[in-house]
Amino acid sequence: MNACSSLAAGTVREAAIAARSAADRLAALRGADRDGALTAIADALTDHAEYILSANRRDVQAATAAGGSEGVLDRLRMDADQIAALAATVRHVASLPSPIGEVISGSRLPSGMDVRCERVPLGVIAMIYEGRPNVTVDAAVLCLKSGNAVLLRGSSVARRTDSALIDVMRGALMGSAVHVDAVQLVPGTTHESARELMSLRGLVDLLIPRGSRRLIESTVRESVIPVIETGEGNCHLYVDKDADIPMALEVLLNAKAQRPSVCNAAESLLVHADIAPAFLPPALAALREAGVTVHGDARVRAYDDTVVPATDEDWGREYLSLDISAAVVDSMEAAVNHIHRHGSGHTEAIITDSQSTARAFAASVDTGIVAVNVSTRLIDGAEMGLGSELGISTQKTHARGPMGLAALTTTKYVLTGDGHIRGGSTAAPGLSCDALAGPGD
Amino acid sequence: MNACSSLAAGTVREAAIAARSAADRLAALRGADRDGALTAIADALTDHAEYILSANRRDVQAATAAGGSEGVLDRLRMDADQIAALAATVRHVASLPSPIGEVISGSRLPSGMDVRCERVPLGVIAMIYEGRPNVTVDAAVLCLKSGNAVLLRGSSVARRTDSALIDVMRGALMGSAVHVDAVQLVPGTTHESARELMSLRGLVDLLIPRGSRRLIESTVRESVIPVIETGEGNCHLYVDKDADIPMALEVLLNAKAQRPSVCNAAESLLVHADIAPAFLPPALAALREAGVTVHGDARVRAYDDTVVPATDEDWGREYLSLDISAAVVDSMEAAVNHIHRHGSGHTEAIITDSQSTARAFAASVDTGIVAVNVSTRLIDGAEMGLGSELGISTQKTHARGPMGLAALTTTKYVLTGDGHIRGGSTAAPGLSCDALAGPGD
Repeated sequence: MNACSSLAAGTVREAAIAARSAADRLAALRGADRDGALTAIADALTDHAEYILSANRRDVQAATAAGGSEGVLDRLRMDADQIAALAATVRHVASLPSPIGEVISGSRLPSGMDVRCERVPLGVIAMIYEGRPNVTVDAAVLCLKSGNAVLLRGSSVARRTDSALIDVMRGALMGSAVHVDAVQLVPGTTHESARELMSLRGLVDLLIPRGSRRLIESTVRESVIPVIETGEGNCHLYVDKDADIPMALEVLLNAKAQRPSVCNAAESLLVHADIAPAFLPPALAALREAGVTVHGDARVRAYDDTVVPATDEDWGREYLSLDISAAVVDSMEAAVNHIHRHGSGHTEAIITDSQSTARAFAASVDTGIVAVNVSTRLIDGAEMGLGSELGISTQKTHARGPMGLAALTTTKYVLTGDGHIRGGSTAAPGLSCDALAGPGD
Repeated sequence: MNACSSLAAGTVREAAIAARSAADRLAALRGADRDGALTAIADALTDHAEYILSANRRDVQAATAAGGSEGVLDRLRMDADQIAALAATVRHVASLPSPIGEVISGSRLPSGMDVRCERVPLGVIAMIYEGRPNVTVDAAVLCLKSGNAVLLRGSSVARRTDSALIDVMRGALMGSAVHVDAVQLVPGTTHESARELMSLRGLVDLLIPRGSRRLIESTVRESVIPVIETGEGNCHLYVDKDADIPMALEVLLNAKAQRPSVCNAAESLLVHADIAPAFLPPALAALREAGVTVHGDARVRAYDDTVVPATDEDWGREYLSLDISAAVVDSMEAAVNHIHRHGSGHTEAIITDSQSTARAFAASVDTGIVAVNVSTRLIDGAEMGLGSELGISTQKTHARGPMGLAALTTTKYVLTGDGHIRGGSTAAPGLSCDALAGPGD
């Protein structure tokens, strides 16, 4: 595994320049060539599993010696089954249709000129993330599948594992049509290396931070490259007065307790006052039985004295644990107002059998995803038929909600004519570049 | 016109809070109500033309007294015809189909759950621009049409005109279903007011600077809100060895000289060496006759001694005047490399009758728009059938190329089921939020 060092000698900028050059070549390849490279990566992960696991053991030892928390160690640790699952995921991504070249819109204008808008790769995508080595592979293969080069900046805690994974992937690319520099680990794991990455406007097209709110906040503040915020999910479940109570109970337990540590778990329960007397007693009992601590307002606590008083902070918390905040509200509008004060723009769910309430809730709640009579746990690119996802965007521009392969692309208009020119009198009505012309236009 | 002051008392932040509240109400309106508000604005512009022109005369007097350049005065000055044209534009925008509620994708999954992705308004859009009052109306009506509130921050040079236009538009909104605070002029025209605007993350969803490169650069560096860069157009016209010479001559003159002051005018000519002896002599003669100064490399200058030597800076310049840089290149690939060094990502044109060359050029040139046997002057939202545009985005994320109404929207997924929940064994293959879970996910 010495043919290609994962640690690019040189600066973050040099890595980005090499990535840009690799991206230009990637964009010109056929989809089948990109898929061939992905298959080679899947094979290499299987063939070199022990190389990866050995590096991972050293990371785990070092993290243990440094007193890392069980959460850190859990995210860091890999085993043979996980590597086999990673390889299977890579093969699945290879089997998906390519997003590149998809014609999004097109027409033949009255003048006979053809206009076509198609998907093309973004170019170079950078990812800043924490100590979770499977992201190293997942991000690389989704970027390659969508025709992009990727710059990965992981955590120092996973440095050996990330380097081994990059070694294996770059080794696989050497025998493929894709240039090895399409996948690189950024030199350094200090904040300085992340800052340098965030400054590379013109070389890096998109920056995706994954991890803590602090990491995402600092990236948004410091980056001059477009950033996509992902992942924070303070998801609400609103049980409307017209809810089917057995359905509401089943969805609540699934949304909160089926896997509490992920972004699409429910973190807050809002119950319409009219249904609270019938719904809350069985709901609070079921939550208690599932080991969930309920942080409730006074109206919820009136039903059950094991409910912990909710503080102001509870309403905004993404617990990622067997905890849920709960409040009684007097109307659907009050639920929406509560969500607008405290929600993270990820997923907001309603249980109701009223068509008009469902329609009004879906229209008025400002979020990436609305779930009507559906568990928040089903909000997931793979579950929603997008094939794969790189995360859930909680921002509004470029991509919102589950980020499939299309979120890693941009568009290109191609106009084709027979010497078409613009005449003074042929201008179409409507605002145009000309009408808006000013300095720099 | 005193019923509603255009100068919001208070801070930029207060204006943004009022805009957010107006945006929430706007999103809930029917398209017909938004169109009604636009029609009321069109009527009011016509009815109060003299009020606007009187304010404009005072701006022009003040700018003249301050020694403003002819360019500044030209962009600032309005007349009755322009106001009539503005009103007609507003009516045209009202007549376009609403982008809101368009279902972009949707399916019924094997589980019976319905997934629908539809367009929704972004919320609050801010625009920072220079002394060109028609932008005040154009931006406001495109934002309202797409269901967004707008915060406008114009230039001090146009302060009186902008205020009058805002007075007239807000007066019209008072009789409509749209809250007046959906259209506001930001208090202040200092750099501080722009900086405050750029800091309002969570209140403002998108910031669009229009104007000089300096304005756009400083906005990208300082803003923590997503920014769309628009307008810089260093557009190239590449005349391939397989070009039809009469077509190439006609397109060149149209692209350079039909209206040189706008972003889609050609600023640089690249000619394949094989066709240069036949093409350049008539091309240089025609350009000279049209009053165009050619800034050429040595190979171009060999054909005509009136060609001015091009400096290194010429290749990157957006002249916006009767000037063009010109170079001879040895291949299509050399033309693409030149474009990648100097282009602005706006529009790159090729004249060729070779299908393979056209296809390779369109695939390899990294730009928002490729024009094949078409004048760059046709690159325009209205000309391209998009109805209207707010500018040409030269960046890759969110919107690239002509920004029609869809560029002012985001999406919302709506999932509808009958109590669908997630089971441990029903997980779809592929990467998912769960697989990528980490802190903050």
